[in-house]
Amino acid sequence: MNTLVQVQPVETRWVYAFGGGAADGGAQMKELLGGKGANLAEMSSLGLPVPPGFTITTEACNHYYKIGRTHPADLRGQVDAALAQVAALVGKGFGDPKNPLLVSVRSGARASMPGMMDTVLNLGLNDDTVEGLAALAGDRRFAFDSYRRFIQMYSNVVLGLDHHMFEEILDDRKDVLGVTIDTDLSADDWLAVVADYKAEVERELGRPFPQDPQEQLWGAIGAVFDSWMNDRAQFYRRLHDIPEAWGTAVNVQSMVFGNMGDTSATGVAFTRNPSTGENRLYGEFLINAQGEDVVAGIRTPQPLTRASREEMGETALSMEEAMPEVFGQFNAVVRRLERHYRDMQDIEFTVERGRLYMLQTRNGKRTAKAALKVAVEMAAEGLITTDEAVLRVDPASLDQLLHPTIDPAADRDLIAAGLPASPGAATGKIVFTAEAAEREGAFEPVILVRDETSPEDIRGMDAARGVVTARGGMTSHAAVVARGMGRPCVCGAAELRINAAAGELRARGRVFKAGDIITIDGSRGEILAGAIAMIEPELSGDFGVLMGWADAARRLKVRANAETPLDARTARQFGAEGIGLVRTEHMFFDEARLAAVREMILADDEAGRRAPLERILPMQRGDFVELLNIMDGYPVTFRLLDPPLHEFLPHTQEEVAAVAKSTGLDADKLLRRAADLRETNPMLGHRGCRLGVSYPEIYEMQVRAIIEAACEVAASGRATPHPEIMHPLVSKPEEMAFLRRLTDRVAKQVMAERGMTIPYSVGAMIELPRAAICAADLAKDAEFFSFGTNDLTQTTFGISRDDSGRFLNAYMEKGIFEKDPFVSIDVEGVGSLVRIGAERGRATRPDVKLGICGEHGGDPASIAFCESIGLDYVSCSAYRVPIARLAAAHAALNRPKT
Amino acid sequence: MNTLVQVQPVETRWVYAFGGGAADGGAQMKELLGGKGANLAEMSSLGLPVPPGFTITTEACNHYYKIGRTHPADLRGQVDAALAQVAALVGKGFGDPKNPLLVSVRSGARASMPGMMDTVLNLGLNDDTVEGLAALAGDRRFAFDSYRRFIQMYSNVVLGLDHHMFEEILDDRKDVLGVTIDTDLSADDWLAVVADYKAEVERELGRPFPQDPQEQLWGAIGAVFDSWMNDRAQFYRRLHDIPEAWGTAVNVQSMVFGNMGDTSATGVAFTRNPSTGENRLYGEFLINAQGEDVVAGIRTPQPLTRASREEMGETALSMEEAMPEVFGQFNAVVRRLERHYRDMQDIEFTVERGRLYMLQTRNGKRTAKAALKVAVEMAAEGLITTDEAVLRVDPASLDQLLHPTIDPAADRDLIAAGLPASPGAATGKIVFTAEAAEREGAFEPVILVRDETSPEDIRGMDAARGVVTARGGMTSHAAVVARGMGRPCVCGAAELRINAAAGELRARGRVFKAGDIITIDGSRGEILAGAIAMIEPELSGDFGVLMGWADAARRLKVRANAETPLDARTARQFGAEGIGLVRTEHMFFDEARLAAVREMILADDEAGRRAPLERILPMQRGDFVELLNIMDGYPVTFRLLDPPLHEFLPHTQEEVAAVAKSTGLDADKLLRRAADLRETNPMLGHRGCRLGVSYPEIYEMQVRAIIEAACEVAASGRATPHPEIMHPLVSKPEEMAFLRRLTDRVAKQVMAERGMTIPYSVGAMIELPRAAICAADLAKDAEFFSFGTNDLTQTTFGISRDDSGRFLNAYMEKGIFEKDPFVSIDVEGVGSLVRIGAERGRATRPDVKLGICGEHGGDPASIAFCESIGLDYVSCSAYRVPIARLAAAHAALNRPKT
Repeated sequence: MNTLVQVQPVETRWVYAFGGGAADGGAQMKELLGGKGANLAEMSSLGLPVPPGFTITTEACNHYYKIGRTHPADLRGQVDAALAQVAALVGKGFGDPKNPLLVSVRSGARASMPGMMDTVLNLGLNDDTVEGLAALAGDRRFAFDSYRRFIQMYSNVVLGLDHHMFEEILDDRKDVLGVTIDTDLSADDWLAVVADYKAEVERELGRPFPQDPQEQLWGAIGAVFDSWMNDRAQFYRRLHDIPEAWGTAVNVQSMVFGNMGDTSATGVAFTRNPSTGENRLYGEFLINAQGEDVVAGIRTPQPLTRASREEMGETALSMEEAMPEVFGQFNAVVRRLERHYRDMQDIEFTVERGRLYMLQTRNGKRTAKAALKVAVEMAAEGLITTDEAVLRVDPASLDQLLHPTIDPAADRDLIAAGLPASPGAATGKIVFTAEAAEREGAFEPVILVRDETSPEDIRGMDAARGVVTARGGMTSHAAVVARGMGRPCVCGAAELRINAAAGELRARGRVFKAGDIITIDGSRGEILAGAIAMIEPELSGDFGVLMGWADAARRLKVRANAETPLDARTARQFGAEGIGLVRTEHMFFDEARLAAVREMILADDEAGRRAPLERILPMQRGDFVELLNIMDGYPVTFRLLDPPLHEFLPHTQEEVAAVAKSTGLDADKLLRRAADLRETNPMLGHRGCRLGVSYPEIYEMQVRAIIEAACEVAASGRATPHPEIMHPLVSKPEEMAFLRRLTDRVAKQVMAERGMTIPYSVGAMIELPRAAICAADLAKDAEFFSFGTNDLTQTTFGISRDDSGRFLNAYMEKGIFEKDPFVSIDVEGVGSLVRIGAERGRATRPDVKLGICGEHGGDPASIAFCESIGLDYVSCSAYRVPIARLAAAHAALNRPKT
Repeated sequence: MNTLVQVQPVETRWVYAFGGGAADGGAQMKELLGGKGANLAEMSSLGLPVPPGFTITTEACNHYYKIGRTHPADLRGQVDAALAQVAALVGKGFGDPKNPLLVSVRSGARASMPGMMDTVLNLGLNDDTVEGLAALAGDRRFAFDSYRRFIQMYSNVVLGLDHHMFEEILDDRKDVLGVTIDTDLSADDWLAVVADYKAEVERELGRPFPQDPQEQLWGAIGAVFDSWMNDRAQFYRRLHDIPEAWGTAVNVQSMVFGNMGDTSATGVAFTRNPSTGENRLYGEFLINAQGEDVVAGIRTPQPLTRASREEMGETALSMEEAMPEVFGQFNAVVRRLERHYRDMQDIEFTVERGRLYMLQTRNGKRTAKAALKVAVEMAAEGLITTDEAVLRVDPASLDQLLHPTIDPAADRDLIAAGLPASPGAATGKIVFTAEAAEREGAFEPVILVRDETSPEDIRGMDAARGVVTARGGMTSHAAVVARGMGRPCVCGAAELRINAAAGELRARGRVFKAGDIITIDGSRGEILAGAIAMIEPELSGDFGVLMGWADAARRLKVRANAETPLDARTARQFGAEGIGLVRTEHMFFDEARLAAVREMILADDEAGRRAPLERILPMQRGDFVELLNIMDGYPVTFRLLDPPLHEFLPHTQEEVAAVAKSTGLDADKLLRRAADLRETNPMLGHRGCRLGVSYPEIYEMQVRAIIEAACEVAASGRATPHPEIMHPLVSKPEEMAFLRRLTDRVAKQVMAERGMTIPYSVGAMIELPRAAICAADLAKDAEFFSFGTNDLTQTTFGISRDDSGRFLNAYMEKGIFEKDPFVSIDVEGVGSLVRIGAERGRATRPDVKLGICGEHGGDPASIAFCESIGLDYVSCSAYRVPIARLAAAHAALNRPKT
């Protein structure tokens, strides 16, 4: 904002009333009225029994913050008018000592933020009105109980006093009276408590507890607005990606009481089971209680229906049995609400002396399993369309369904916590080396526990059921590889002190030895002692049905990143339409190949490199044949050698000695070469296609292996091969031209030798800012672009993902980053470059095929971005393929129609 | 090219004739005719005596390559017609046995590429025409000498035979005849040599030497075109930034002979002295010789003028004395050419039997000193404008004038060669450690020789006269720092084997010990044994005059990168208009501060960090006061702490032990902290403003030091401070907003404490792609942008400059990089981002101040780019300030007028 003075239009409407079968707002006005306010208005308009009230808008909240925590000048008049309307509807007066109107003041943001912000109940009570309430209710004890509740809540929420002081006063009073539970206190006892409370407030604040209901009301409204910026609200927003700019509304509503005797009650209900999705009313209630009592857990709530009560073997009556008439009304309202909102509803209600009041309805939160079932069944019932059903299931939640998970009922003995790097759970014996994992993992389940992992550990990771590291973040080697393999993984468990040599780990004062059984929960980032009961994933019928609808709705293709036949088969089972990224060096870490690779690296000249490459060729070809067979008819993108060569060499003196001994390679030469190849910033070093330019013979061998494999597959008649050859880390069009010539030359030669023609394409991995900027020229020689957004994020931000752990947290805490840019694509920066690359590439070559193969390929928000710029496909790890399919459907369905 | 068939317009003109006082072309047609052809045409049009001929265009050359080394179909007819015109003008016939026309066939590209391409002289001679030549010349010996020269040259250039075989035949013949020099051979002797030559050619090739002049001509034309792509031409082009697409023209010109007796001669001349710039005819000639004899150096050429001869104490007559009439004509022609071309000319001429022929004129190459003098004097003479004078001096060449250089006459005993990392020369004793350099450099000149340098070596580098490293490229730490300090430096001398512990270095089988005297030539990248005579820089009057004109012509401001008072004063002397980059951490490496810095790094919390920061504050403030005083009235940009903290810690166990002992810091803690801070990719790590966000107290201390210093300077009345506070490595607008708040808060606080107001500005270093992309939002909080193009190049390309040495050479060789992007800005990629950043920044804040402070700030091509996008200033190392001032003037003068 550049102007110093905010001129506020005179006519801004800050207040929307509801009640008496009508409302100023409606369900569609959530942005302005918050979820609670919009739905109260909606229910009121539907003629449902809603206690009258009004909503102060989120715009008023934003305005409050914009002008320094001050209310707009014209708010007071609008509140006064609305309050008068409420009073008229209920036939009471705000502050009227004979017939007092009491109100609740509650927050209500656009998104549900349960318990994060503040609420004040029973507002309007003072030394005079409490007597009026007593008379009206015919219950003096109830009135003073309500008054003391109000003083306690208001003092805490609005006046900032600690609630413990009030509890102490109450406890002291009980001691004096010799009673233990609240219900044993009489009206006079409560009256005494109220006096003590008021005296305490005055002592603390130097002024009496406010008696003026207007003062009370404005204090509460300000407190609710203030609570939008309290620590826990800010934390919750960050966790759930809720923008600060949304603001909260304030709902002021006439009070109804579920605690006015045995014909009163309060409860919550779901129209279907939020855990299983079963289509049956689900919930609980308490007779003679206020909502806070249900939450407090002092009394055990009863089920709503007789069927539920019987299933649970309870004896206390269900609502259906205890108040059959009200239950009948309630059941009808509940059914109507689900039909009206066309979604499973989460409902709060109160019964005041036999009369039903609806206090809230909203779409109910549910487990992934329930979401699937509800969506599929509602579509079957004709309540929603199949596209709507697809949109009802959060793609990220599918992760819960695709992996074994720890039984929620099981006890958890926490050893240490880290990052939830790869979902699912696994149990096994601790091993501290990749070799041990390979050796022992063949016979019994093992968990690989290391400080960090490196490419040499891949076979060990594959042999283990799960992986734990003490270092590294969500995109560390261990995390990326584990997600790709579908292995649960906990990363960056910094409190672990691992001594692999001694075969032990220490954490929180406990010691675990190699061979001890642990369980890891990769979805929560926890390491637990012992074996724990698991729930196996169940890809039920609902899953298949919904995924079919999703596939029909989406435009983006979904491929997998996969190197092994196992990964490739898993990917196909999960519905992958090809492989978007085969890291061809993955196979180099196999023991037999590694020796040849190292011999090649040690060679002094091209001839010396060609001999070992000759030995690697048939092995690579064999791998590629398998992948092409599995992906019959689908494209397979082979990325040529990418990591710097030093990753293939041993580094420490000990490692070198061991390698030299086992391979016969010269130890001195190994050491010297490793030192020569050492890089200050390996991420920005001699890697990617720079290797192919420096040592063309390596890429020639790989291209040959790919085309020979394709020829072999085609000749066998078993499958139709669609190889795509991808050059990583391209930055200059001249580089791409060189690589294109190399690729075509070798491919032509192989096809001539075999006497056959294989359609193949050649492309570039766009993972450097310069590649995106120069995409127009790159597209002259590249038939496809695959955006490698991991590295593109690293270079665009100048952030090494290996090192970012040190400051990313401070950045998230300070609000500089809202999300980890390695998890969800940074649309403004990295996304801009992807967009530029796509646009410029298409300008040169309109049919250039465009995809994404970074970690972002499995992230729903990133997939939505890919859809928005019209990419052709996303590629992600095999276990995220269903998530990507569903996210792609969401993206297509949510895309603005042009 | 997408079409398969190139349709060539019928009417393309491939051939441009000249001679007889007229020409088809002219001097302005260098692109089409090459330099030589254009100037021959121009001289011909001026009516100067040019042997008639014609030029085949560079387009014909490009066409030749485009269609697979084949001439366009219509070329032959055009050549035939032009040749007939030449024959008519000279009254001879091509192939006419009685009156043969002989021609030279020479290359001629747009830019001079001396000796890189091929030439054939005396073409048209065969067994018949040689007799005709003999008769015409009345000199049979001359005719057969010419024939044998032709055979040798043609066989070598066109037929690809080694010239040694011809030299052997000639030597054999001389042995038989018992003579030693060519002039002792008679006509018959040469006839016999010709017979031997022809027999040798036939033996080698299996076919006789071509006798058909047409076949000879087309062979020679093809050979000249072919020579455009020979290795040395390609190498030369790369070295001098000459695009391959330019192509070469071919000049076919009737022969004239300087070797037809004592009234014939050949020579070269400069209209002014190319070494000193003195305005006096300069050159040499040989009587009775052909051009190649002058080059061959068998006979010593004579000076052109009597004055020169007398000065040199020669006795052989000058041209002025030997052929006064022709000299008079020549002198008049030469004066006319200089006036016509308005530049010093480099001229080739031949006198054939008393008649003058002009064979070439072109703007003469000259030393930097001569360029200055010629430009200033020509402007004084009114021949050119002062702006033209400015454009006549190559900015890069000034480097020669600003440093001591090795006397060109001195003997050089080469120890090893490396990269010319920082210009100038220095002599001193070898020291192998920074400590030794500091200790001994105070008393006698030392040269610091290390494998590589690090920030801790800075004081040692400063104390040394020059620096040598065995590792690292043109932008390694040693190179950057040495250039900044104006110290000569040779980097990446990989053949050096340095054993610092043993105090010796080995190279090429020799051993040098600490204390041995060496000399380094940083301009050539050579390390030489012993002390060698030097020439001190002379910033003569011409220099000052020209720089004054340059300053008047330029728009860009020029600042210096400087940290020390010495650097700052040097920068002011060289004309810097402020400091564009103070690396504030530079001062942290001072011993007293380093201890405090390390204590801060080891601290466990903010309080622990604040105590040592308090101790650093007054030291930083003191440094800043000095810089602000020196830069009185000019802006000084302070970049806050940038390098990762681990750069300040010792790393090896030994270093740690030493530090622990001397400072009392805990060794274990030092080791642990260094290990904690270790980064995989420090370039992309926890550095720059990320430190300021993580540890705001560090930046707070630095901002306080800057503003306190500015207050102190302003209060003293000694100078007017203009501090600019720059935050490095910004990538997000949210980050900039945080830093802006921090900066303003501290600044306001300090000014309130001091009761004064200091104008200061706050800006961002734009050195990440994301910063450029999000510049519009960054500019909300940044009042200036300084493009840090070193890091921006690293991240845009994904190339670590520390590691790029491994592949950049292969990339240059393969033509993927034309220039090292760390030396000259990559306009397409990195430049695009700078342009985007500038445009978007200005969109938000039209007066945002824009500058560049990378190494590119001193590179003329990069400065031209900065001018083209309208930046406000460039900042470079102090010693490059004059270069930048001149380059900025060039850029302004060369900028297309809109």
